[in-house]
Amino acid sequence: MQQYFVKGKAEELVTITDKDTAKHMFSVMRLAEGDEVVLVFEDGIKRLARVVSSSQQQLEIVQELKDDVELPVQVTIASGFPKGDKLDFVTQKATELGAAGIWAYPADWSVVKWDSKKLAKKVEKLEKIAQGAAEQSKRNRLPDIRLFDKKADFLAQLAAFDKIFIAYEESAKAGEMARLAQELQAVEANQKILFIFGPEGGISPKEIETFEQAGGIPVGLGPRILRTETAPLYALSAVSYAVELTSRPD
Amino acid sequence: MQQYFVKGKAEELVTITDKDTAKHMFSVMRLAEGDEVVLVFEDGIKRLARVVSSSQQQLEIVQELKDDVELPVQVTIASGFPKGDKLDFVTQKATELGAAGIWAYPADWSVVKWDSKKLAKKVEKLEKIAQGAAEQSKRNRLPDIRLFDKKADFLAQLAAFDKIFIAYEESAKAGEMARLAQELQAVEANQKILFIFGPEGGISPKEIETFEQAGGIPVGLGPRILRTETAPLYALSAVSYAVELTSRPD
Repeated sequence: MQQYFVKGKAEELVTITDKDTAKHMFSVMRLAEGDEVVLVFEDGIKRLARVVSSSQQQLEIVQELKDDVELPVQVTIASGFPKGDKLDFVTQKATELGAAGIWAYPADWSVVKWDSKKLAKKVEKLEKIAQGAAEQSKRNRLPDIRLFDKKADFLAQLAAFDKIFIAYEESAKAGEMARLAQELQAVEANQKILFIFGPEGGISPKEIETFEQAGGIPVGLGPRILRTETAPLYALSAVSYAVELTSRPD
Repeated sequence: MQQYFVKGKAEELVTITDKDTAKHMFSVMRLAEGDEVVLVFEDGIKRLARVVSSSQQQLEIVQELKDDVELPVQVTIASGFPKGDKLDFVTQKATELGAAGIWAYPADWSVVKWDSKKLAKKVEKLEKIAQGAAEQSKRNRLPDIRLFDKKADFLAQLAAFDKIFIAYEESAKAGEMARLAQELQAVEANQKILFIFGPEGGISPKEIETFEQAGGIPVGLGPRILRTETAPLYALSAVSYAVELTSRPD
């Protein structure tokens, strides 16, 4: 069944005010009185809703649904600003794969320079991509999209995480490949996990030092060199496999 | 260091005959006498090679390298023909993630119809994409690319695999999520594993039956609905995580 995210709290009678959502519901899908869809408000609970009036874009809530497909841990990925439209791609795929946050920061070796005006526009675009992907993959939550203007603002966030992993190619080369699995076997429900990725050129030695000082653990993601836009997908899949598919002793 | 795949067996003196490779080496990278690159022949061994003559496109082998980044199991992914250019994307990413084979077949619910002429052209294009991705991710082997004209030809291949997994959305819904992890914990080195994916519309009930009769095991890839081009990336990441990153009792 078609699913839509709606801003705000759930009310018994809902008027769709977001233009894109209203257009998709009543122009594209041509929903009519009595048709049912799933609405997801900011509390993350899916609710079955029935169209009361298509001209007034009104729906009534029928019942709460139990379906919850969120990862049991909250995973944020943070990429060094990559070239071109790679963040669009990362946003769509990372949303499908369950990311709680999709962030990017100006890394030492980022080639692109984005000013705050450009960043604001890009956030808006990525939020739309994330919403589309979250609706299609039936998520309960929209990921938090943040593009940091200054690296210091990104660094100021690190203390909020329970675990920080630094995806570091040299860790793969050094054969430190068991580290991520060891750490993931010890994570607990609802913990906040951050994965930091470099841009195309990688993470600079100075950045590695900074991230490590903030508690970051360098980890390898297998022996093959992954492109900057592929590594986050590996990380999210690995977390899902470790915490959703693997039955653990605890 | 730049890496190139070369057809055939390794010889002490190598003449580059492939036009695209020669162009990249001597026009794009402007390799000159004495410059070193890594060559990978069909035996999958990386060899350090030194340019002897750029005008004659000749290199000499310096030494064998020990570097082997191939997955310890051979994973083939088979997608129902998807829409548009999705196979291009899947080919690039699956190559980075270590796929031994990237196949596609005409599924019951595939929307596109490709005739054999179109398929031959498409294989050629995908092989180029795979070669570029394999060189960048420093693979030892190029994946085997196959697009099956008839589903029967695909089905005839199933007996060659040690394990067949069917990525089936209903398995995720039914909560059968531990199955893949249980099976992956039991795989042995060099086993041949096949993952079968449906096109956008999914795998038909008749196909599920056929794949199951051939020994296929329906598995879920987490509770979120993944697009047809995202599911293979999850599967390959999960296999890498399970067999390369997780230390196992055996």
